[in-house]
Amino acid sequence: MPVPLPGYAEAAALVAKCAALLCEAKPCSEQIALGSSLGRVLAQPIRADRDMPSFPRSTRDGFACRAAEASSHAPLAVAGSIRAGDPPAGPLPPGAAWEIMTGAAVPAGANAVVMLEHVEHVDGKVGLAAGRTVEPGENIVPAAAEAHAGDELIPAGTCLGPSQIASAAACGYANLAVFARPRVAILTTGDELVSVDAAPAPGQIRDSNASMLAAFVAQAGGEPWILPRVRDDAKQIESALRHTLSSDLLLISGGVSAGKFDLVEPALARLGTHFHFTGVRIQPGKPLVFCEIPRDHAPIQPTFGLPGNPISSAATFLLFAAPILATLAGSNQNHPRFGQATVARDVKGRPDLTRFVPAFTSFLDGRTLVTPVGSQGSGDLAAFARADCFLMVPEGLERLPAGSPASILRI
Amino acid sequence: MPVPLPGYAEAAALVAKCAALLCEAKPCSEQIALGSSLGRVLAQPIRADRDMPSFPRSTRDGFACRAAEASSHAPLAVAGSIRAGDPPAGPLPPGAAWEIMTGAAVPAGANAVVMLEHVEHVDGKVGLAAGRTVEPGENIVPAAAEAHAGDELIPAGTCLGPSQIASAAACGYANLAVFARPRVAILTTGDELVSVDAAPAPGQIRDSNASMLAAFVAQAGGEPWILPRVRDDAKQIESALRHTLSSDLLLISGGVSAGKFDLVEPALARLGTHFHFTGVRIQPGKPLVFCEIPRDHAPIQPTFGLPGNPISSAATFLLFAAPILATLAGSNQNHPRFGQATVARDVKGRPDLTRFVPAFTSFLDGRTLVTPVGSQGSGDLAAFARADCFLMVPEGLERLPAGSPASILRI
Repeated sequence: MPVPLPGYAEAAALVAKCAALLCEAKPCSEQIALGSSLGRVLAQPIRADRDMPSFPRSTRDGFACRAAEASSHAPLAVAGSIRAGDPPAGPLPPGAAWEIMTGAAVPAGANAVVMLEHVEHVDGKVGLAAGRTVEPGENIVPAAAEAHAGDELIPAGTCLGPSQIASAAACGYANLAVFARPRVAILTTGDELVSVDAAPAPGQIRDSNASMLAAFVAQAGGEPWILPRVRDDAKQIESALRHTLSSDLLLISGGVSAGKFDLVEPALARLGTHFHFTGVRIQPGKPLVFCEIPRDHAPIQPTFGLPGNPISSAATFLLFAAPILATLAGSNQNHPRFGQATVARDVKGRPDLTRFVPAFTSFLDGRTLVTPVGSQGSGDLAAFARADCFLMVPEGLERLPAGSPASILRI
Repeated sequence: MPVPLPGYAEAAALVAKCAALLCEAKPCSEQIALGSSLGRVLAQPIRADRDMPSFPRSTRDGFACRAAEASSHAPLAVAGSIRAGDPPAGPLPPGAAWEIMTGAAVPAGANAVVMLEHVEHVDGKVGLAAGRTVEPGENIVPAAAEAHAGDELIPAGTCLGPSQIASAAACGYANLAVFARPRVAILTTGDELVSVDAAPAPGQIRDSNASMLAAFVAQAGGEPWILPRVRDDAKQIESALRHTLSSDLLLISGGVSAGKFDLVEPALARLGTHFHFTGVRIQPGKPLVFCEIPRDHAPIQPTFGLPGNPISSAATFLLFAAPILATLAGSNQNHPRFGQATVARDVKGRPDLTRFVPAFTSFLDGRTLVTPVGSQGSGDLAAFARADCFLMVPEGLERLPAGSPASILRI
């Protein structure tokens, strides 16, 4: 081959560099209700609208007191009672305690809360039980200890999960600005493909990539736009490509190998496409194409030519397309999220390629074990259905021995 | 306390036992389009509708041949050409090769495919290039090597991700039977709570648990049903509980501590509730209640009384309610999915409790590092917004030292 192919890390860095440029044009944002925000990307920061907590909060049911007075174990008169939600009470008279419930405001003058289980009741008064001690500040979260009014709690670009939603709710965000979902065009190519609801004739197979890529796109926060499938025909491909030019990202599947009916790359070239790479030293997915199609009245369209074999398509999507999609979605989490696992049995490496082996994980005795699914190659969807991750075997490694640590990428 | 509280493992086993009983009544199923199936739970197995592959498939562009003939390096006449999607060709005449594209059916009589890059063209004939060898079976996936017609590829109870969707597409499942999403009632209690869109008066806070629990429920495959919030009032609570009895699972938040306005447990008791446990040796989440409410014309309703502090609610949901919810959703993946990580700095343990510390993960040099977010307690939503997992510190461990392995539970 005339130009040496980039390795995995080099190709990933190229994609990240392009993503950084795409970042500069922020996506559109839209206002949505907090209840619909799970999995969306924040287009605004979430700020504390008041001190958190806004009052010194008791973390226990018990008695608010002065720690110094209570420490003498002398009986304290019960000056009042406050429950969560009541307006702050007090001041606490000298020599007294104030009954208090978890979550209630600590009365002015008190500097500790003695747990209910640690007091003794004597003649209508309460005292610290024998053998118990109490320190100033005990069982109280001081006002503003968690955050001050105006503090940024969650930066824009964060994908909202339950814990961020809880925080936004606490700060009064009944509505939120989130980034619009990028529209991702999916174009599958190949004379051998028929629809999912068709019966393949001998030599044909069903198009599984359109459904799979749509699921990957939705999972990664995009809006999948499945285009009509095209045959291995130069004109059909070129016309379909022109039709996709209103999308934010284009995924083409198939037609990128070295065969004489691999017509995608020439069709892209005729559109004036700038190619970042037309292959990567990975297995599966070596023929991956990453490029940018120029557009008349819009920024360039980032485009991937994914190899047509389903497992190759899946691996290259997760490794390269998902990070670009995350960037287009406005997310600040735009690198593949590898995880740590322990290899359950020996896995062969390759001197010249980084391998991404379909595998499944199990959790045993505090360790995530990862086991290859044992597939017949990158078209084996029977095996791939059992996979929940790709196991990475770095280039040049003869093998990953059983018991060694490994990086996995969740599907 | 009269009855000793169960530890984490014991409580989890109790929940799993109840889940196994709930399993016996399969949830209703519904028919949906494959394109809407991401994250749904299969109510039917996916079976191969034909052999996979249904023909011997070439994995390369090149020439189909008899390995023995090609190995002699003699030039072979090109008898024909077949591309992906063409009906199977052949038979291959003796002393000949058949041009073939990736994904095409190997012509009858051929038993190997020589890669395009490994042939030499001589006078219109092709021969194996000098120094290259070819073995029988090379670059061919035999018919039925991946699966036989009728084989179960994906069992019912599997949650559908992109790889399962690809497999179902390949087998012709344009529509699928999936289990109906369980309806999960969410009831928040507490005099201190106001709505997300309200301005809290002094001593009040916004209700963040309803939004957070709804997000958790949706993430775990349920349909959240947020009920009107109730005050700490015995009658209001009891009437609300009666109103929830048409749900598949009930989550109550707040009112389960030992305080005198913790009225949830007594209200449950008045409904004839059977309590499995009313506390667990965990932090946060110690006051967790797990019980079953009897119903007149329906099976029991599994119910959790979650502690009101948001981080306690989150931890107990993930540890105990999510597994029950997965079971009700028909999923065979109904245990908390812990993962493996390396502790970034020392974390204290407790002699008497298993700790679940809000933490965040980062990935560095092949390891998932986990770092506590450093919170002010289980009400600290400012800190919790930075958490993406809970870090488990087993009961009785004085500390988890930096660098040691740990189990994490993703939020």
